[in-house]
This record gives sequence, C-alpha cells and structure tokens, in this order.
Amino acid sequence: MHTYTEEKIEAYQNENKNRARLLIRCPDQPGIVATVSQFLYEHGANIVTSDQYTLDPEGGQFFMRIEFDCPGLRDKKADLEKDFTPIAEKFNMHYDVRYVHELKNVAIFASKEPHCLLELLWEWESGDLMANIAVVVSNHEVVRDMVESRGIPFHYIPANRDIRSQAEAQQKEILEQYDVDLVILARYMQILTPDFVEEYKNQIINIHHSFLPAFIGANPYERAFNRGVKMIGATSHYVTNDLDEGPIIEQDIGRVDHRDDVAAMKKIGQAIERSVLARAVKWHLEDRIIVHGNKTIVF
Amino acid sequence: MHTYTEEKIEAYQNENKNRARLLIRCPDQPGIVATVSQFLYEHGANIVTSDQYTLDPEGGQFFMRIEFDCPGLRDKKADLEKDFTPIAEKFNMHYDVRYVHELKNVAIFASKEPHCLLELLWEWESGDLMANIAVVVSNHEVVRDMVESRGIPFHYIPANRDIRSQAEAQQKEILEQYDVDLVILARYMQILTPDFVEEYKNQIINIHHSFLPAFIGANPYERAFNRGVKMIGATSHYVTNDLDEGPIIEQDIGRVDHRDDVAAMKKIGQAIERSVLARAVKWHLEDRIIVHGNKTIVF
Amino acid sequence: MHTYTEEKIEAYQNENKNRARLLIRCPDQPGIVATVSQFLYEHGANIVTSDQYTLDPEGGQFFMRIEFDCPGLRDKKADLEKDFTPIAEKFNMHYDVRYVHELKNVAIFASKEPHCLLELLWEWESGDLMANIAVVVSNHEVVRDMVESRGIPFHYIPANRDIRSQAEAQQKEILEQYDVDLVILARYMQILTPDFVEEYKNQIINIHHSFLPAFIGANPYERAFNRGVKMIGATSHYVTNDLDEGPIIEQDIGRVDHRDDVAAMKKIGQAIERSVLARAVKWHLEDRIIVHGNKTIVF
Amino acid sequence: MHTYTEEKIEAYQNENKNRARLLIRCPDQPGIVATVSQFLYEHGANIVTSDQYTLDPEGGQFFMRIEFDCPGLRDKKADLEKDFTPIAEKFNMHYDVRYVHELKNVAIFASKEPHCLLELLWEWESGDLMANIAVVVSNHEVVRDMVESRGIPFHYIPANRDIRSQAEAQQKEILEQYDVDLVILARYMQILTPDFVEEYKNQIINIHHSFLPAFIGANPYERAFNRGVKMIGATSHYVTNDLDEGPIIEQDIGRVDHRDDVAAMKKIGQAIERSVLARAVKWHLEDRIIVHGNKTIVF
Repeated sequence: MHTYTEEKIEAYQNENKNRARLLIRCPDQPGIVATVSQFLYEHGANIVTSDQYTLDPEGGQFFMRIEFDCPGLRDKKADLEKDFTPIAEKFNMHYDVRYVHELKNVAIFASKEPHCLLELLWEWESGDLMANIAVVVSNHEVVRDMVESRGIPFHYIPANRDIRSQAEAQQKEILEQYDVDLVILARYMQILTPDFVEEYKNQIINIHHSFLPAFIGANPYERAFNRGVKMIGATSHYVTNDLDEGPIIEQDIGRVDHRDDVAAMKKIGQAIERSVLARAVKWHLEDRIIVHGNKTIVF
Repeated sequence: MHTYTEEKIEAYQNENKNRARLLIRCPDQPGIVATVSQFLYEHGANIVTSDQYTLDPEGGQFFMRIEFDCPGLRDKKADLEKDFTPIAEKFNMHYDVRYVHELKNVAIFASKEPHCLLELLWEWESGDLMANIAVVVSNHEVVRDMVESRGIPFHYIPANRDIRSQAEAQQKEILEQYDVDLVILARYMQILTPDFVEEYKNQIINIHHSFLPAFIGANPYERAFNRGVKMIGATSHYVTNDLDEGPIIEQDIGRVDHRDDVAAMKKIGQAIERSVLARAVKWHLEDRIIVHGNKTIVF
Repeated sequence: MHTYTEEKIEAYQNENKNRARLLIRCPDQPGIVATVSQFLYEHGANIVTSDQYTLDPEGGQFFMRIEFDCPGLRDKKADLEKDFTPIAEKFNMHYDVRYVHELKNVAIFASKEPHCLLELLWEWESGDLMANIAVVVSNHEVVRDMVESRGIPFHYIPANRDIRSQAEAQQKEILEQYDVDLVILARYMQILTPDFVEEYKNQIINIHHSFLPAFIGANPYERAFNRGVKMIGATSHYVTNDLDEGPIIEQDIGRVDHRDDVAAMKKIGQAIERSVLARAVKWHLEDRIIVHGNKTIVF
Repeated sequence: MHTYTEEKIEAYQNENKNRARLLIRCPDQPGIVATVSQFLYEHGANIVTSDQYTLDPEGGQFFMRIEFDCPGLRDKKADLEKDFTPIAEKFNMHYDVRYVHELKNVAIFASKEPHCLLELLWEWESGDLMANIAVVVSNHEVVRDMVESRGIPFHYIPANRDIRSQAEAQQKEILEQYDVDLVILARYMQILTPDFVEEYKNQIINIHHSFLPAFIGANPYERAFNRGVKMIGATSHYVTNDLDEGPIIEQDIGRVDHRDDVAAMKKIGQAIERSVLARAVKWHLEDRIIVHGNKTIVF
C-alpha cells in the first residue's frame, strides 16, 4: 500500500515520463537557437517551455533552458545524447540533459531549530516537492522523531568546530551511501570545510537568516534589531568557501516595526526563511538554475 | 532645442533602430520554433528575447513573441516581411512585425479626476513611457492646463449619455487626424458605443476602479466599503461591448482596514489605478500582449 | 513527559498568567478613555497595548481593545469584573474581559482536501497557534490519520444535503461535549443550517477560495480561470446565513498568469487559503476582532 | 485666484483647525494614560487616535501619540499648554504639541537626478503632501525649471567637497530666511558637516538607494549588481554624522533578476526611492515619528 506522498510522486513520474530539460551555456553566436530547435524537431521532441539569456549581447555568454516532451523518451535517450554531441562541440557548449522522472536524491542537514526542516518535509509530504528525501543528518537528536515518523532515515552525527573533520568523514560516507545529488543546509549552523564544499560544488543550498549582504555571519536578528531596520529578510544561496558569499538563489523580506523585539523578529523571520529556502530548493530540483561565476541565472 | 522628454525618446529610437518584434499565433504543430529561428538566423537577425506558450499542448494554439536585432533593419524590412510570408502560410499564422523605433500614437481620454492622466503624463515626461502622446480628449475643461503646458494638443468635447453619437463623431475625427493606434480611457467614465469599440478593437485600454469581477459598474469604492472588504483593487482591460468584461491585462490590490472610509479608499485606490494602468499601457506599447478570446497572454 | 507543543503552550500560559484583554463597544461620548484608564490604574493594572476606533466621529460608535497586565490577576478577577459593572452601565457598553491564559476550545470541520486543516495543525504543533484543538470533525475518513497521530480526537460524521439535520445533531453534541468556543470550517464544503449558525454566532470562521465578493459560491477557481483574472484570492469570514456574505476578517491574493490552468490556480490558491485562514483564526484567538453589523474591526 | 494645490491646502487647514497632536516620551510608570486622557477630557478634547508603546515593560521608556479634536482650539492653545506643564513635570516627560493647521516649512535639497524631487513636487501638487514647500536648493541648474514653473523659489548653490563650508553658510542663510522646519535630501549626494547636522537634528531626512545596512556609501546599485542580489531596496533615514547610519524611518524593496543590468536596477530602484522617501516625509509631517537613540518609533 502506498502513502499519500508516494502516490503523488508516482503520478508525477508517470505524467513526466517523456519530459526532459536541456540546460546550455556557451559563447554567444548566431544560430544557436535555430540549431537546437531544429535538432529537437528532427528527434520528434516538442518544446514545452524555452528560456534564454545573453549576458552582454556582443561577444558574451549565452544561456538556455528548454523543457521538451519526446514520446518514447526512455528508448531515445542514448540517441538523443549521442546526436547532440557534435552540436555541443560546434558551439563549445557546457550542457546537461535532465530527465524529469529521475528524482534527485536529497540530504537535509539540520540542527536544533526545526522550522526549515519541517517546511521541506511538509512540502514533500503534500506532494509539492518532487525529490527523494534520502536522509536527514543532524548534530542534535531533537528532530529525530519528526524525521523517522515520516519513514525517512535519520543519522545523528555530533558536529562542532573541534570535530569538524571526523563529522564530515561520517557525513560524506552517508552522502555516498544514499547517492545524494543535493545537500540542503536547513539552518545547520556549522561551517563546512573547503574539501567538503568543493566535492559538492553548486550542490549545497544554504539558508541565511538575513537579507544578504546585510548581516553576514552570526546573530543577524540581534544585529537587525540593534540597527533599527524596518524590514528583515532571508537569503538562500549555494555554499562556497566564503561565508555567506555564495551565489544567491532567492531572497525575500518581511516588515517589522518598533514593537518587534528580537524574539518577534525571529518568529517573523522564520516564516521568511521557510518560504525562501523552499522556493530555492524547488527551482534547483526543477533544473531552473544555472550558476555563472558568483551569480545565478534562474529561468 | 530639445526637451528632456524629446531627448529621451530620440535616444530610445536610436538605440533600437535595428530592433523588431515578431508576434505569432497559430495552431500548434512541430517545427514552428525551428523554422522561425532558422528564418531569423538566415536573415542575419539575433534573437534577444523569446517567449512562447501553448494553450492545451495537444492540438491547441501556439503563441510566440520574439524580439530580435537585425543590423541594417531599415533596408531589410521589405525582404524580411516578404520572405516570412510563405512560413506564415505554411503554419497558418496570424502574425505581426513591429519595429521598436516606430512609436505608437496614443490618445488619452480623461474626465474630471486627473490622477490617471497625470500618471501617464509623468511617466511620459520622465522618458519611461515610450509613445507619442498625440492628443488628450476630455468632456471637462479641468485638465486642459496640465495637458497644454506639456505641449500636447487638448480637445474639449462635451459628452454624456444624450449626445453620445455627436461626441463620438468628433472623437473619431480627432483619432483619424492624429493617426491614433491606441486609446487610453484614463478614468473617462463614459460608455462607448459598439461602433466605436469595434473600430478600435483591442486598441482601447480602460482602467476600472475595482478588482474585477467584483464590483462591476458604478461606485465600486462605496460598494467595497459597504461590503467590508479588507483589500481594494483596480483592473486594466481592453474595452469590449460588455461593460467591464473585456480581456484583463493587469490587476493589483491594496490593503484597507476598518479605519478607511470611502474617501480613504478612493485615495488608496487611486494609487493602485495609476500603477495598474501604467503597467498595462507599457505592456501594450512593448507589444507584449496577445488577445485570445476574452483573455490576454502577456509575455 | 510533555510534547513540544504542550511545553510551548504551558510556557505561554505561564508568561501570560497576569494578562487580560478588555473589549469594549459603546456609543461614543467624551470621557470613555479617561474613565477606563483610570479604572485600570486604580486596580494596579498596566496597559500593554491599547487600540480604539470611532465610527463616524459625531454621535457614532466607539470601539476599544486594551491589553493589560495585572499582578495577581487570578485573585483579582472577581473584583475587577464587579467594579467594572457600573462603568459599563454608565457608558452603555457591550464588553468582554478575556484572560489570556484561558485557551479557547476549538473544533475544526474538514472535508476531503486537507491543506487548511494541516496548516492549522502545523501552526498548533509548532506553538504558533495558542488554542486547545479539542476535536476534528469530518464527513470523510481521509484526514483521520493526520489528526489522530497528533493525539487529537477525530469524529467521522457523514454529511450531505440530504442528512444535514442528523449530521448537525451529532456535531452539536460533540461541540457541547468538548465545550467548543470556536468552529473553524477548514474547507468543509457543507452548508450549515440557520439554527446551527445562530447558535454559534460570530464563532464560526470559514475560508472561501476566492477574493470575495468575486466568485461567490461553487468552483471559484474554474470561474477565475474562465474570466482570465491576473490574481486569485481567498477570504476568511464569520459564517452567517447568507452564503459567503458574512463579516470578512481577512483576504489575500496571489498572482497568476496565462500559463496557469485551473490545477495550477488551485495550487497557488491553496497556499493563500492556508495563510489567510491561519491569520484570521489567530486574530480571533487573540481577541482582536469586534464584529459590527456585517463588518469586522480588527485591532 | 487659487491653484488646485492652494485649494487643497486651504481645505485641509480648515478641516483640521481644531485638531492637534500630543507626542510624549517619558519613563514608564503607572497612571500616565489615565492622567493624560483625564486632562484632555477636562479640556473638552476628544481623542481621535491614540498610540502607545513601552520599550521594555519593566522600568523602561513610554512613548505616546494622541491626535485629538478640541472645539475652539485657537483660543484654548495657551491654556492647554499651560495646564499640561505640571503633568509633564510630574511624569518627567519630553513632549510636543503640534497644531495640524500649522504647516511645516520644508526645504528640498536636490542634485542632478530629479526623480525624488519630482515625486515630492507631484505629491504636493496633488494635495497629498501637506506642507509648505518653501524652497528648493541645488548644486546643479538642471532642476531649476521644474521648480520655478510650480512657483517655488529655487536657489543654485554650487557645492562639492572643497567648498563645503561656503556652500553650507549660504544654505543655512536660506533655511533661516524661509524659517525651515524640515530639510529633505532628495538624492542630494553631498555630505553635510557635523555643524549643519547638529543644527537640524532629527530635521534632515535622506534617501539612500540601498536596503541599509547593505551597500552603505557610494554606488550601491553597481555593488548590488556585482553581488548578484535578487532584490534591491531603498532606505529613508534621519541624517546623523555617521554616513548612512542614522535612525531608519522606512525601507522598501523591489525584485530584480539576472536580466537586470545596472541601468535596469537604477530604474527599478528609482521607483522604490521615490515611494520610500515620500512615505517617510509624510510620516514626519504627520508627527508620527519619535526618534529614540538610533531608532525610530513610527506610530
């Protein structure tokens, strides 16, 4: 017997069994769109949505995301990929083909504050976050129940500044075991080592509880309160080795006023963190994001 | 010597002298994007932005808007249009080519309340509304000064229920005289006859001071107040012969609470009306809107 | 051992053991604020927040909400209420005193679509909705698990047009059994009889899935889609015997565009319904709402 | 004959001839509200709106703003102020009484970019900004016409880093000549000396084109673009001698995406700057703001 979530996921995979996404990045030059759309047409694919962007029109970079339906996709994958190779070479493309029915394996890292973890679990349960939540890792036991009660494996791995490398060794083992494609830091509050970050480049999404670049680092709500701001925010970004400096995916803000003390700001802020992180994660899962330098293109 | 506005417009026209927009509507079938993009490539055009939408993927309607740069556009226009004809015929297209440097001629119809008219004049003065505001027509003298002081012709044409046909005869003459492409009803408050509406089909934009379809017709703020709503809105739409039932282009809302009486609601509402109308007009001027039945596709 | 939710609730009750709210409604006349604030001062109470509103300054209605702290409140309740009686009589007041630590007993009526029920349960679990969720009633079994797994009693009571009175008889019995103060229709989809509504006047909160008064009645998303609106909304209101015509507590909207079909609108709308209903319920629980005729004053 | 603006202002002054505002700040203690409301009652005043706030309930600061109507206010002013003195002394109050019909004299300092100046002039012209715009000062001639054409005196005073003290000497003379109560820096772009700032403490409002404390100082849009933020903002604050560090009055933001280059961000940002500054100025004119340390309480 299937759970509500499993049924939603199966229905999604079935609906999208012929759907794929093509992400392209290359130097701009005439004829790219014509060539790619001709290629798809000849392979019996129908373009569902198409987005493109040229950074600096003259001699710049070209970015494209095409979502297409191709009847009998499963059997055509090998041919599609093989036949696209000469096109990619001609235009000097970096590209990816993603098949929508192949869900990404996701690991969520959490700490003591559960609101961001819970938001992701709720979205997943209701069939609004199409991924395989493979595992949750935390340096606190407090969230174990809410994870395991949903049938998701939970691993308690103590972590702090002093035992960072041991912790990361265990974490990496788990990520490999579950073949994880995406790590979500759901208010994990621990800094990762450069090695770890490098190994999962553009595959780790963090939520920072401020409107970056304001209030980088610790205690942003306290500092927002002390500064007397009239709005607080949250920022979701890919993790790099510069603290809170990675490519921003999404930001949002909420109003506060003089009546809001630090506790009230945290409450208001948590709702913003939840929705900002959930949006960023969904866009990643839908292959909408291309990272370019320290910025994101979100189609 | 040029005014600030004239300078802005000239700069815009110069920057866009090689830019055009292609709007397409046809039955969906494979190969449209490939064919059109190949056509543009062969004519030396570079796609700047491209949007498409398919209504009902199987056997439905296909809509597309492409903005492209084509060096030497002025000299190539005739060839481009001629060479596109067989493509349009093959795919059974309705299509339009619009040249960005050719500004549309706009007539604004106003009544006593000047806020919507003023918003359009301000946007135009600051170089944010790229059109030729050819003429302002009103059934009241009150706005004459604010129009003429900006060097725009003003025509006072009395209008009310009893003299509708005479008024419209005069108005049509003026629209022809100024070769008007777009009529904006900036809170004009008079109903137009079916003949008039038919002659300017999808070329008359109205602003209604409610969140349609709530409060169709007269006195929407009074009725919103009496109903005790917590938000009021405004709706911009193309005019058809069903009152306030034409294709909606844009809507927005603002919060009100129990402290707001009808006068306060009007004040809050006016700000919404201004921005909703200005957005709708800009999208029309940028050829972003395709009307399909009683709906709009806004790219 | 206590659950997370129980701990949050206990902490809240303890923090607010000396806090009360005074809600007043009376004909406007000079001296009300002076008299009431003098009364509170003499009884050792400290005003924490105070809001007032006069409908029609000359000869109109006066509304006030005062939140105050009074050390030793439990022992002073009787005196406070007794001593306030002559003041209430002098000014011809309708008034209520509410003690913050006395949580309201809430019943939630649900049907097949669980999103609004789930939102309330999540808010309650995380300690953000301070009430005693006494019971959930549904005419479908589908939500039983999500209710009972949280330790909340669930009652399945079949209900439809033909068995309305039997169903309501059972429902009333349950409401009495749990001493319910507030009934929340979380997308319950059944119409209540005038008797039922009368018995719980201003104590039944509904969520309607449109921006009222647009799309009163059935299938609002289908109708919104057919009209081609650019925004959809949700409205929370007290239930009266005029369908979707009761006093509005809160409304909100979300943007849609031509790409959104009815299913997409429902998805977008569900998020709006959830947050609008949750806000309305919280305001009711915080005694912020005074109903006046067919409108609400929300302090 | 009166202009539209003059008529609006006269109507406002006439409607509010009996209306005043009382702003209070004092150490918190029991009985303040009771005493003040009793005082107003005894002097025949009717409270229209009342807001209060206590910073740190135990032993903290109490802030209050009361707007009241008092028939025959002009003749009672002296008595009201005299009779309030002992109350102010008893509670150790800082307080102000402001008479609504006495408009504040405002000076606007502008530079080359006119959008913020224009917004204030438009609001004023339409009767939405109730002040006496006494004078506009600029270090550029470019805005002279738009000021003088509205009948407002314009003074061109060259200003830059090297001639700061001479420029300020001339500016101060003008501020005295026009008896200015409020200086608005409408994108003035020059730093003021500590002397100047001290002389007009909490009377100089600036607009900074970023969401402070992000991007303090020069070129915020360039820096926002380089950081790849997904939202840009604007902040209005009172000027202190710490650059962009004064008490924040209002902030707002707008969305940007990867398609927006620096020029597009400036355009989007200008609309935000305009509305943020206009709101901050109106709140100041309506005596809604109390400065406390480096923060504002906005009632």
